Amino acid sequence: MKQVYVINGPNLNRLGLREPNVYGHETLSDLEAFIKEKGKQTSCEVSCFQSNEEGQLINWIHAAGDVGAGVILNPGAFTHYSYAIRDAIASVSVPVIEVHLSNVHAREAFRHESVTAAVSRGQIVGLGFKGYHLALLALMEEGEI
Amino acid sequence: MKQVYVINGPNLNRLGLREPNVYGHETLSDLEAFIKEKGKQTSCEVSCFQSNEEGQLINWIHAAGDVGAGVILNPGAFTHYSYAIRDAIASVSVPVIEVHLSNVHAREAFRHESVTAAVSRGQIVGLGFKGYHLALLALMEEGEI
Amino acid sequence: MKQVYVINGPNLNRLGLREPNVYGHETLSDLEAFIKEKGKQTSCEVSCFQSNEEGQLINWIHAAGDVGAGVILNPGAFTHYSYAIRDAIASVSVPVIEVHLSNVHAREAFRHESVTAAVSRGQIVGLGFKGYHLALLALMEEGEI
Amino acid sequence: MKQVYVINGPNLNRLGLREPNVYGHETLSDLEAFIKEKGKQTSCEVSCFQSNEEGQLINWIHAAGDVGAGVILNPGAFTHYSYAIRDAIASVSVPVIEVHLSNVHAREAFRHESVTAAVSRGQIVGLGFKGYHLALLALMEEGEI
Amino acid sequence: MKQVYVINGPNLNRLGLREPNVYGHETLSDLEAFIKEKGKQTSCEVSCFQSNEEGQLINWIHAAGDVGAGVILNPGAFTHYSYAIRDAIASVSVPVIEVHLSNVHAREAFRHESVTAAVSRGQIVGLGFKGYHLALLALMEEGEI
Amino acid sequence: MKQVYVINGPNLNRLGLREPNVYGHETLSDLEAFIKEKGKQTSCEVSCFQSNEEGQLINWIHAAGDVGAGVILNPGAFTHYSYAIRDAIASVSVPVIEVHLSNVHAREAFRHESVTAAVSRGQIVGLGFKGYHLALLALMEEGEI
Amino acid sequence: MKQVYVINGPNLNRLGLREPNVYGHETLSDLEAFIKEKGKQTSCEVSCFQSNEEGQLINWIHAAGDVGAGVILNPGAFTHYSYAIRDAIASVSVPVIEVHLSNVHAREAFRHESVTAAVSRGQIVGLGFKGYHLALLALMEEGEI
Amino acid sequence: MKQVYVINGPNLNRLGLREPNVYGHETLSDLEAFIKEKGKQTSCEVSCFQSNEEGQLINWIHAAGDVGAGVILNPGAFTHYSYAIRDAIASVSVPVIEVHLSNVHAREAFRHESVTAAVSRGQIVGLGFKGYHLALLALMEEGEI
Amino acid sequence: MKQVYVINGPNLNRLGLREPNVYGHETLSDLEAFIKEKGKQTSCEVSCFQSNEEGQLINWIHAAGDVGAGVILNPGAFTHYSYAIRDAIASVSVPVIEVHLSNVHAREAFRHESVTAAVSRGQIVGLGFKGYHLALLALMEEGEI
Amino acid sequence: MKQVYVINGPNLNRLGLREPNVYGHETLSDLEAFIKEKGKQTSCEVSCFQSNEEGQLINWIHAAGDVGAGVILNPGAFTHYSYAIRDAIASVSVPVIEVHLSNVHAREAFRHESVTAAVSRGQIVGLGFKGYHLALLALMEEGEI
Amino acid sequence: MKQVYVINGPNLNRLGLREPNVYGHETLSDLEAFIKEKGKQTSCEVSCFQSNEEGQLINWIHAAGDVGAGVILNPGAFTHYSYAIRDAIASVSVPVIEVHLSNVHAREAFRHESVTAAVSRGQIVGLGFKGYHLALLALMEEGEI
Amino acid sequence: MKQVYVINGPNLNRLGLREPNVYGHETLSDLEAFIKEKGKQTSCEVSCFQSNEEGQLINWIHAAGDVGAGVILNPGAFTHYSYAIRDAIASVSVPVIEVHLSNVHAREAFRHESVTAAVSRGQIVGLGFKGYHLALLALMEEGEI
Repeated sequence: MKQVYVINGPNLNRLGLREPNVYGHETLSDLEAFIKEKGKQTSCEVSCFQSNEEGQLINWIHAAGDVGAGVILNPGAFTHYSYAIRDAIASVSVPVIEVHLSNVHAREAFRHESVTAAVSRGQIVGLGFKGYHLALLALMEEGEI
Repeated sequence: MKQVYVINGPNLNRLGLREPNVYGHETLSDLEAFIKEKGKQTSCEVSCFQSNEEGQLINWIHAAGDVGAGVILNPGAFTHYSYAIRDAIASVSVPVIEVHLSNVHAREAFRHESVTAAVSRGQIVGLGFKGYHLALLALMEEGEI
Repeated sequence: MKQVYVINGPNLNRLGLREPNVYGHETLSDLEAFIKEKGKQTSCEVSCFQSNEEGQLINWIHAAGDVGAGVILNPGAFTHYSYAIRDAIASVSVPVIEVHLSNVHAREAFRHESVTAAVSRGQIVGLGFKGYHLALLALMEEGEI
Repeated sequence: MKQVYVINGPNLNRLGLREPNVYGHETLSDLEAFIKEKGKQTSCEVSCFQSNEEGQLINWIHAAGDVGAGVILNPGAFTHYSYAIRDAIASVSVPVIEVHLSNVHAREAFRHESVTAAVSRGQIVGLGFKGYHLALLALMEEGEI
Repeated sequence: MKQVYVINGPNLNRLGLREPNVYGHETLSDLEAFIKEKGKQTSCEVSCFQSNEEGQLINWIHAAGDVGAGVILNPGAFTHYSYAIRDAIASVSVPVIEVHLSNVHAREAFRHESVTAAVSRGQIVGLGFKGYHLALLALMEEGEI
Repeated sequence: MKQVYVINGPNLNRLGLREPNVYGHETLSDLEAFIKEKGKQTSCEVSCFQSNEEGQLINWIHAAGDVGAGVILNPGAFTHYSYAIRDAIASVSVPVIEVHLSNVHAREAFRHESVTAAVSRGQIVGLGFKGYHLALLALMEEGEI
Repeated sequence: MKQVYVINGPNLNRLGLREPNVYGHETLSDLEAFIKEKGKQTSCEVSCFQSNEEGQLINWIHAAGDVGAGVILNPGAFTHYSYAIRDAIASVSVPVIEVHLSNVHAREAFRHESVTAAVSRGQIVGLGFKGYHLALLALMEEGEI
Repeated sequence: MKQVYVINGPNLNRLGLREPNVYGHETLSDLEAFIKEKGKQTSCEVSCFQSNEEGQLINWIHAAGDVGAGVILNPGAFTHYSYAIRDAIASVSVPVIEVHLSNVHAREAFRHESVTAAVSRGQIVGLGFKGYHLALLALMEEGEI
Repeated sequence: MKQVYVINGPNLNRLGLREPNVYGHETLSDLEAFIKEKGKQTSCEVSCFQSNEEGQLINWIHAAGDVGAGVILNPGAFTHYSYAIRDAIASVSVPVIEVHLSNVHAREAFRHESVTAAVSRGQIVGLGFKGYHLALLALMEEGEI
Repeated sequence: MKQVYVINGPNLNRLGLREPNVYGHETLSDLEAFIKEKGKQTSCEVSCFQSNEEGQLINWIHAAGDVGAGVILNPGAFTHYSYAIRDAIASVSVPVIEVHLSNVHAREAFRHESVTAAVSRGQIVGLGFKGYHLALLALMEEGEI
Repeated sequence: MKQVYVINGPNLNRLGLREPNVYGHETLSDLEAFIKEKGKQTSCEVSCFQSNEEGQLINWIHAAGDVGAGVILNPGAFTHYSYAIRDAIASVSVPVIEVHLSNVHAREAFRHESVTAAVSRGQIVGLGFKGYHLALLALMEEGEI
Repeated sequence: MKQVYVINGPNLNRLGLREPNVYGHETLSDLEAFIKEKGKQTSCEVSCFQSNEEGQLINWIHAAGDVGAGVILNPGAFTHYSYAIRDAIASVSVPVIEVHLSNVHAREAFRHESVTAAVSRGQIVGLGFKGYHLALLALMEEGEI
């Protein structure tokens, strides 16, 4: 059975509590339950992780690179400056899909640039929880891309 | 029955003929057949358009804004400078999802900026034909986002 | 009798439908009726044109340059990047006055720069329909400037 | 009877004496007589001011904001760097229309940017004395914009 | 008895009248009464000045430099471009503390840079009238810093 | 009794040991004792934290956001690039005041920009230990701002 | 017999009428007659096209890519921003040589950059009609390059 | 007898008091006495002015333009941003020579640019009081340049 | 016996596994064995550390600063943005030599800038494992530099 | 008989030896023989020069300006920074045509800018040896341009 | 007797021949005769040098640094990019005064920056031959500065 | 026996005489004796060169490329702008190691960028004479890298 890592970065543990006009009222638990449920529907095992620490995110990407079938990564604000996470993505062979809940291009200028996208397989932006589901579908059909 | 417009911009008529190392060997016809087939599976009517003319793309976006349930838009190179298409998207109320076949962030610097993304609902990048399918799924569940 | 061309660029056909908080509720037809009425009051023949196509706008500017007494030009979003329209203005001898309905300087940064203004006679910004009327008055007294 | 302030900034007292290839041979007195005459024609009282001092211009804008029906402001070179005048405009409720005699967009690069336009009602550029007249007309019909 | 100069720059005479969503409804008189009262509590003589003229502000800074125990300076918009005020601060030996009522970092980009802060002793931003009080406390304990 | 968090970022554990020409000879313990003493004087409970890890700082800001009355935050060098800490501040409702011991505007260019200030309540710069005291006073009178 | 496409972009139909100090008095017809005559001398069939529409230029480049032996392309002002034309050039296999009548490097700054040159075979600048002839010679000897 | 205006800008009244490591210990009075003495030696009448107000400097430049034989101008910090003074220089016909006591190119980056030099006759930098003398010599031989 | 810290930053634990075309096939263990062997040859005790966490790297630099004879630091991608590590280096008195395995100047643009080099003693780039050896030699002869 | 100077700049003596994937296998001698042969065919005397020294290239341009009928100049890497060569070209009256063997626009960013092109007659890029021949033809017909 | 070196850089040997609208009709010989004559009047020995080679200019600066009383240096176009000449100036102890014949600030943008001025004693710009004389006077009174 | 070229660029002949606070008191002769001695110890023949002329440095790099086993190159200030030297390095096959005596990253901003490093094998910065020795060791073990 294929194993997919869902890795959420800094402040996503505040989901639902934080800026509801941007992120809505559902929490990280809701998100993780949602994506695990979607995983079951497509016969893949979804493991969920969240940390506010850059180094921990890097460790999980490395771990996924050895055992996983793919990574769904929302690097949060690290998207915009963490070249260390960029290097972590480049150091693994499994496909990584970058996901953002909100439309980062419609927000502050610093959110328009992603330093991690260039080494990811693809990017899904602005589609809320659904973005994670779409990323999962993309990974499941990977062989067919 | 919901109607979705799939609008492809400049040079996508050269798909399969053009830079196969970037875009593969499948043609625009293949892409349109693929996405229409996916539309049937989700009970929505998919209309496909392609033009190399900025003004024509704007006209179709306007048209979709009056009758469609959503637009899947690949503005091609216009993504990077057509503020006129940006204004067209902003002038319609149906959701527009921007799609790119290749991972634009891994190519030339000018392809990293999208002037149209800020007024779109979301963006799907680097997932090939599958990106159009995912955009379709997102539009179909729109009420639930 | 003097002939004045009023040329409106991309998305102005959506006037009244588009972003009413920015552009109000009056339509392109209202604008054209308004300016034609003003033309009658000052004994000049006003011809109105609108297109979403850059090339068509260029063709009309060329045409005006051969027969018209002046051009009132709202290049819409082309204002900010169409060096081709800039060259078209530079290639005709009749005076061209650039008009914008909204105050472009109070909106997104990309709207602050006009690539066409440098080769126009003048520019009127932020005064709504009235801006077209003022431009007409300016053209009518041209000999006296 | 409506009262309009015409406020001219630095070096406009040199009009007619200064760079005649750019500004022509008419003087500040000519300009003030011209715009006062136009004011009479439209039943409004025009008061004219000129100073080379930024602080004095700010004081007059404040004064107009309490009693005037509108301000026609040519900030001269302050247009390009006086954020203090920008704040003065933002601090009054009467409409302010920025006017420039010459086409600033066709001159040195530093003249292309206006730091004051964003908080003004509108801007009229490159139409000589006539620009002041057009601004007056715009202010007179203010209720109708 | 220690003497402190409180020098307010352009448009602060419009306080309470100007942009109440940014600055509230209290006036310059209120501010000056508040800070003088605070001065009495800490046994220092507070002299208050306000001008819209850059040169006048420079003169007062020079004056304070000869007789005062410190300056609380809100240069208003001059903060962002007046190198002349910067040089005035550098030319006196008494400590100068720069104060801004609003959080300039949360407003327009041009307000993020201070050309005067580098030569001031310190800077207090975004804490309203209270910022002046805190600056006063800092100056009173100067010897102990 | 009100609870205030004082959170110090990277390298502040080297205070007194590090660059004494910039930071003086007092240590982090001295600073924490000083601010706790000041807290007692104003009847508020001050809890002090220091870490060199970005993720740990984010965790403490989150914690304060749930229970504290305010945060005094010196993000150290993270001030200049940690958008993750910026998002953490934006995700809590208690007021956060940013403090810097030295005058960052008088040091290297990279220290002139704060990516965290825009979402903080205010900022106090260059006033040494006293800056923490002033921030505490500001938080204590919060209701009155 | 080898077939060469000569494709002229926006405003070149105004040649001879437009800015004679820059472009001289000869017209587009003159240019097309000249290059066709040169084609005859070197036994190649020259087909000439001109349009002010970006999309039309793209269509002709595609057409040439299927049947032509080479393209001589003067993209006019599109040179400086049309990434769509750039992609069109990249999508065909015949060699494309970019030609400019005037020395673009001696004119306005925006004319110094070509977004299309990087994907062209070569570029000939500033040599008037003769530049087209030289491009033709280069294409005719293509096999020998 | 030729009349030369020596106009000193903001903070030069602090000469000798201000930053002696940069400007030495001699005062403005010393400078004015020095240059008047040099004027006597070359049979020209030197009138000295100093102000911290931009508008006053502009007024004096205008005045010199009507009666003087030349202007020696040290605009102080206004050198780096006062486009109003630039326009004042451009509005007079007498030659203006810009002088700086210190070597501005060896100081902060903002002092490296002069917005006034482009419209001055020449510039003398870094030679202390002597720079004023050299400027005087240059003006006296003006006819011979 | 002199003690040298060798501190490797993020993703260096993937050495040999990661991008072998850039970094070769030898692992972190190989590197640590190599440099420890070299240490023995020059009678110095080499302690090796690796972490993906910025805060941990800072802690080790602090630790080395109290007991070590020098630090060989490869900050990995942190080189390009971690001002916190920069401050850590500046806070210790032992010499720090920055080492990069690959020639960062021949890779992506973001790798060309080092924010940590300015406060290090020196930098060795592009010489593979050997670079660590050379850094060790440099530290061993420190007294003689 | 007309005399043409062919001046090749730095590293062109390594032609054929250097980066054959960019420049091919033919040497400078081959190039000089080729262009001299072409000169004979068009009855002009071709003199060839090559130097790695900027000053020597300047001297030859000066020499050609006095006696030659034109210069074919490949400034090599000096193209991108030698304002001294730019001034040399501007100081002679014979036409200078800039030639580059490779398509500089398709290589590193620094090669996209030419500081010498603005003062040259024209520029031929990317056409190999043939570019020199075309430049020769252009110079031979100079009277007819 | 004091010895002064006058060192002229690239293309100054074309003086009088080159761009007479910028530089007039007098030649380098005229300039050298003029400044030598001025030297005699002030009892100093003037030695004149000119070269188009950067290295030669550096050699002469070194030579002057060992024996001369000062250098008058016109680096020509090297002013704008030769950091090697900058280092040469910094390596000698005699004062160097930079001179430019024309007002570089009124010409192309690249001429506005001097990379050599920061390490020179002073700079004299735009005063023609007279500038060299003034520089000589400045050097002669050096002890008195 | 392996032959290594040590090539020093502009102003290094002033070593020991120039800016001793940056470069110390040892001279170029000392440096050359030091590195030759080190060469003897590792059985390689070291040839030393120094010139202030860019063209001469290029010639020596070419020469080394034909006969040498490696080059140790200190391009001095040319490091920061000489694309011609960059091309010379790229045109030879022997490894080139760039060396700087001082830590260029701790000096002026223009010294932070190296245009030559990208085509060199590696770079050693800030380690004084020792840097040359380390470069020699690196070249000697080249086969083993």
